[in-house]
Amino acid sequence: MKKILKHINLPKELRQLKPEDLPHLAKELREFIINIVATKEGHLGASLGVVELTIALHYVFNTPEDLLIWDVGHQAYGHKILTGRKAIFETNRQLNGISGFPKRSESDYDTFGVGHSSTSISAALGMAIASQLKGEDKHHVAIIGDASIASGMAFEGLNHAGVTDANLLVILNDNAIGIDPSVGALKQYLTNVKKGTEKQDNIFEALNFDYSGPIDGHDLPLLISELERLKSVKGPKFLHVITIKGKGLKQAEENQIKYHAPGKFDAKTGELHAKSGSSQQAPKYQDVFGETIVELALKNKKIIGITPAMPTGSSLKYMMEEIPERAFDVGIAEQHAVTLAAGMATQGMIPFCNIYSTFLQRAYDQVIHDVALQNLPVIFCLDRAGLVGEDGATHHGVFDLAYLNCIPNMVIFAPRDAIALRNIMYTAQQGIDFPIAIRYPRGRGHLLDWKLPFESIEIGKGICLKKGNRLAILSLGTMAKTAEDVIASIEPKDVIGHYDMQFVKPLDEDLLHQIFKHYEAIVTIEDGAIIGGFGSSIIAFANANNYSHKIHTLGIEDQFIEHGATDQLKQLQKLDTESIKKKVENLIFSLNNS
Amino acid sequence: MKKILKHINLPKELRQLKPEDLPHLAKELREFIINIVATKEGHLGASLGVVELTIALHYVFNTPEDLLIWDVGHQAYGHKILTGRKAIFETNRQLNGISGFPKRSESDYDTFGVGHSSTSISAALGMAIASQLKGEDKHHVAIIGDASIASGMAFEGLNHAGVTDANLLVILNDNAIGIDPSVGALKQYLTNVKKGTEKQDNIFEALNFDYSGPIDGHDLPLLISELERLKSVKGPKFLHVITIKGKGLKQAEENQIKYHAPGKFDAKTGELHAKSGSSQQAPKYQDVFGETIVELALKNKKIIGITPAMPTGSSLKYMMEEIPERAFDVGIAEQHAVTLAAGMATQGMIPFCNIYSTFLQRAYDQVIHDVALQNLPVIFCLDRAGLVGEDGATHHGVFDLAYLNCIPNMVIFAPRDAIALRNIMYTAQQGIDFPIAIRYPRGRGHLLDWKLPFESIEIGKGICLKKGNRLAILSLGTMAKTAEDVIASIEPKDVIGHYDMQFVKPLDEDLLHQIFKHYEAIVTIEDGAIIGGFGSSIIAFANANNYSHKIHTLGIEDQFIEHGATDQLKQLQKLDTESIKKKVENLIFSLNNS
Repeated sequence: MKKILKHINLPKELRQLKPEDLPHLAKELREFIINIVATKEGHLGASLGVVELTIALHYVFNTPEDLLIWDVGHQAYGHKILTGRKAIFETNRQLNGISGFPKRSESDYDTFGVGHSSTSISAALGMAIASQLKGEDKHHVAIIGDASIASGMAFEGLNHAGVTDANLLVILNDNAIGIDPSVGALKQYLTNVKKGTEKQDNIFEALNFDYSGPIDGHDLPLLISELERLKSVKGPKFLHVITIKGKGLKQAEENQIKYHAPGKFDAKTGELHAKSGSSQQAPKYQDVFGETIVELALKNKKIIGITPAMPTGSSLKYMMEEIPERAFDVGIAEQHAVTLAAGMATQGMIPFCNIYSTFLQRAYDQVIHDVALQNLPVIFCLDRAGLVGEDGATHHGVFDLAYLNCIPNMVIFAPRDAIALRNIMYTAQQGIDFPIAIRYPRGRGHLLDWKLPFESIEIGKGICLKKGNRLAILSLGTMAKTAEDVIASIEPKDVIGHYDMQFVKPLDEDLLHQIFKHYEAIVTIEDGAIIGGFGSSIIAFANANNYSHKIHTLGIEDQFIEHGATDQLKQLQKLDTESIKKKVENLIFSLNNS
Repeated sequence: MKKILKHINLPKELRQLKPEDLPHLAKELREFIINIVATKEGHLGASLGVVELTIALHYVFNTPEDLLIWDVGHQAYGHKILTGRKAIFETNRQLNGISGFPKRSESDYDTFGVGHSSTSISAALGMAIASQLKGEDKHHVAIIGDASIASGMAFEGLNHAGVTDANLLVILNDNAIGIDPSVGALKQYLTNVKKGTEKQDNIFEALNFDYSGPIDGHDLPLLISELERLKSVKGPKFLHVITIKGKGLKQAEENQIKYHAPGKFDAKTGELHAKSGSSQQAPKYQDVFGETIVELALKNKKIIGITPAMPTGSSLKYMMEEIPERAFDVGIAEQHAVTLAAGMATQGMIPFCNIYSTFLQRAYDQVIHDVALQNLPVIFCLDRAGLVGEDGATHHGVFDLAYLNCIPNMVIFAPRDAIALRNIMYTAQQGIDFPIAIRYPRGRGHLLDWKLPFESIEIGKGICLKKGNRLAILSLGTMAKTAEDVIASIEPKDVIGHYDMQFVKPLDEDLLHQIFKHYEAIVTIEDGAIIGGFGSSIIAFANANNYSHKIHTLGIEDQFIEHGATDQLKQLQKLDTESIKKKVENLIFSLNNS
C-alpha cells in the first residue's frame, strides 16, 4: 500500500491528491496520531474522531487564507500534522515543543488560540466581519463539539451571527461527549434530530442559520461534497456532522472517557500501560475531594455537589454514582453552575461547587454578584489551582488568588495536604455564613495515610509548622511541602521558621504580628500570580502595620506560563526546591552580614 | 371610584380581592409608580410594563412561600409596593432607603438579589431543586425579559432545567426591548412567533419546556387563568407573555429608551423636566467616548465599535448612527463581545469594546484567555468605573483595577479628565501591540473645553501635576480632580506634590523612584477596591525597591457599597474632598512633629 502521509507536509500538497486517495490518508493520519500519542501521551479520542473532517476541511478550503477555528482545540492534532508540524508532532505538549492546542504564534494555520471551550463561533464571526469590511472573499469555519455548543457563550455567538450576513460556517461535531458524556436539553434535542424524530423547525434554523445535516462525519466523499456545496452558500451556515469519538481505535471508541487523554498505551492493541506502584501512591487531590464529599453527604443531607462538565476530572463522579439525586453535572456552564449553587444556598442547602481554577474565570461575575454580594455559603472547590503542566497557558490556575482576593465576604483557603483539604470540607459543611473558596492543585499529594477522623479548622487561622529565629517562610497551600523540603536541606536548623497561613483571606493578623515582631526576614511562597495574590496581601499587611521588613514574594511572575511538565515549569518560575533553597540561603547570608 | 391600593400592604390582602377588582388595582399601582418615580427618579418603563403580571403572580401564587425571581430587577417596583414596601417606596434608590433592585436582606419576598441580567433561571432552578430535595411543594417562577433571555447564561439555565423535573416556571416578559431595543436572532425568532409565522416546533419546546403563549401580558383575567392552569403542570414550564414597556404612560410607551430611567418628569403630562444649564455643563464621559470614536473612526477605517446592549448608555449609538457598518450592539452578551473583538483584532481591525466596568466581570475569562494570552490589541473602554450611585452594590465598578491588574500583557489606564480620555483613545488606535483597558466613571467631567487637537500619550508614563516637598499624592483617574481640590485648600502650598500616575500597569517606575526619593510620605487615591488595585501596586513597588515609606492607600475598603448618591457614598468611603483633606492634614501634622 502506498504511503501518502509522508509526502504531505502542508495543505497545498493535500489538495493535489485525488479524492479517492483521501480515505487512505485518513487511515495513515489516524495511525500517526495513535502511534505518537501512545508513547508521548496527550488527547486522543477527540482528534481521532475528526480525522476525516480535518482532511475534508483542508481539502476543500484554501487554508490558511480561509480560516479554521477549532473549538477547545484538543481535536486539532490532525490539523497540526497536516499543517507543517508532522515532524515535530512528537514534541506535542512538552516544554519547548508544540502546544497541545492551536496557538497563533505556532502557525499561520492556527488562527485563534483555544483551550477553554465555546469561543470559536464568536472568534470566527469576528474574523468574518473583519473580512467583510476589508472586502476579502474568505471562508471562516468554526468547528465545535456538541458539549461546547451547549455553553452560553456559544449561544451568544450564534444569536449574533444569525442577524449578520457574515460568511461563517459553523460545523457541529456531534459525538455526544465532551470529556464526559454531554448533558442537557440541547443534547437530548440533538439526539432526537439524529433519530429523525425532530424534523420540523430546526433550532439552528430558528436562529437564522442555513442548516444542513446531520451527515456522517466519517464519510469523506459526503463531507467533501457538502463542504463544496456550502462554499457557495452566503451568510451564516450550520453543518451538523455526526462523528464517533475515538474512531479507529476499538478501545477508544468503547471507553471514550478513559481514552479522552489515556496516558501511555500500546499503539497496536490499544491497551493502557498499567501505572506502576499505584497502590503505594498518595491519592490525587481530586479523589480526596471526591471521596470526602461522598462521606460527608451520606451524613449531611443538605450537601449538594455540582460540576460543570468535569465529573471525572473533579471526581464528583463518585457522588454522582452513590447519591445521584444530589450530584449534578450541568455541562460546560460555569456561570449557571455558580448561580444554581447560589439559588440552592438561599434555600438552606450546602452546595459544593467544584470548578477548575482556570474555568472559574468564566463565572467571575456570578461569584461576585450572585454569591459574595449576598454572602451566600457556597463552597467553591477549585481543582487544578496553580500550574497544571502540559495543558499549558490556557489552563494554569494561577489567577484565582488575585481575582478572588478583592471580593468582599469571600474566604479563601488553600490546604497544604490531603488532610487539610478533607478537614476544611468538613468544616465548611458544618455551617458557615459566608462563601469559601478552597483551592488545590492537580495531581497527587504526599500523604498515604490521609483518611483520618475529621477535625474542624478555625476560619482565618494560620499554623506554625516550625519555629525559627531569623527568617520566616510563609507558605500557601501545597507549597508547604516544598518549603519543608527547603528547610530540611538548610543548616543550621534554628534559623528558619515555617508558617502555613492557610487562609489568604481573612489573614491571620495575630499570627502575622507575632511573625513580624519575631523575624528579620520574610519570604512568602505561593503557586499563583504574585500581583494581587497571597504575598501581595502580606506586603499590604506590613505596610498598614508599619513593619518595614522587606518581603520576598515568590510565586508566578507577571507573564503567561507555557506548557511542560509541572516540575519543569516550577524550575523556570524558580518555585522548585533548589531555586527556593538558593534564594533562602542568600537571604540568610545577607542577614549574617548585615 | 374606590381606592384599593391603600388597603393592600401585603400579597395576602391582594389575594382577598375579587378578580374584577384587579384591573382597577393595576391602574392605581401604575399611578403610584408614576407619581413617585416622577419626583424621586428611578427606573420606570420596565415596571409599568409588568403591572398586570406582578398582580397576577402575587394573586395566583402563595408568595413568599412560592418564590418569584425577577430577572435584572428594575421591573420589580410593583412587586416591592405590593410586598410591604409601599410606605417606604419613596426612599427608592436613596441612601439608607430601599434598593432599586430586589434584595434578600430587604424582604422575604425578594428571594434573590439581582441587578445584572440573566441570572433568574439558574437561581430559580437551584431553588426548585432544593425544594424537591426537601420534599416541599412550592412554585418557583423566574420572570425574564427577551433581552435577558438571549444572554448565554440564561441559555445555560434553560438547557439544564430542561432535563430536570423541577417545578420551575419561566415567564418570558417579551417587550422587544432591554434598555435599548433587543437584538439578535432569537429576538427575530420571537417576533415571528408573535406574528404567528413560527408555528412548528418551538425553540423552548425543543429544550423540553412545556411552552404556552404568547399571551397578552396586560390582560389580567387571561394571565390569571393561564397561571392557575400552569400551577398544576409538572416540570419545567415556559409562559410567553407579550407586554409593552412603559404601558400606561403615553410618552413612556412612545419613547421607551428615554423612559427606561427618565429622571424627573411631570406625572400628569409625562413630560420630562428640562435639565438646567446643560449647555454650560462639561460633557459626560460616555459622550466623550461616543463623540471621539466617531471622530477617529471616520479617519481610521480599521476602527470598530462594540457594545453589549448599551448603545445609549455607552454613547456608542453615535457611531451606530454615523458608521453603522462598523458599530455593533451584540445584545447582553459580554462574553461574545470580547471574543468577537479578539477575532477582529486577529485580522488587523482595531476594536473598541465598550463595556461597563461591572459587566466586564461577565467576560473575565475571555479577557484573559482570548485577548491577553494572545496579546491582541483590543481596546477596552470601561464606562461606569468606580462608584455609580443609586444603582448600588450590583453596579459599582470597583473591582476592575484588581481583576485586570493580575493579567499579564494588559495595560490599564485611567484618564484624569475628558482630554486624557480622548487622547488615550487616539493613542490606542494609532496601533498598539497589546490590549489596553481604559476605565472612566459615570457622569460628567469638569472640562468645558475638551475637544482639543489630539495628542499621543506615552504608554506607562505618569505625570507630575504639581511639585511639592514632603508629601506626594498619587492619584488615579478622575480622582485627580479631588486631589487638586484638596491641595488647593491646604497651606502652605509647597508641602504637597501631586502626580497623576495614569497607568496602573505598567507602572511608571522611573517616576516612582523620583517620588520615593524625594518625598517623606505617600498617599494613593483611587476609586476602586484597595485590595489588589492601584495603591496595592504602589506598596508592592516600594517593597520590591526597598523603600520603607508608609503608603496611605485611599480607596474602596473591602466591603460591598450600597446605593445612594455618589457624593454621599464617597463621603462614607472617606473619598470626598473633606475627608481626604483631613487625612492629608493629619499626615502633614505628623511629619512636622516627627
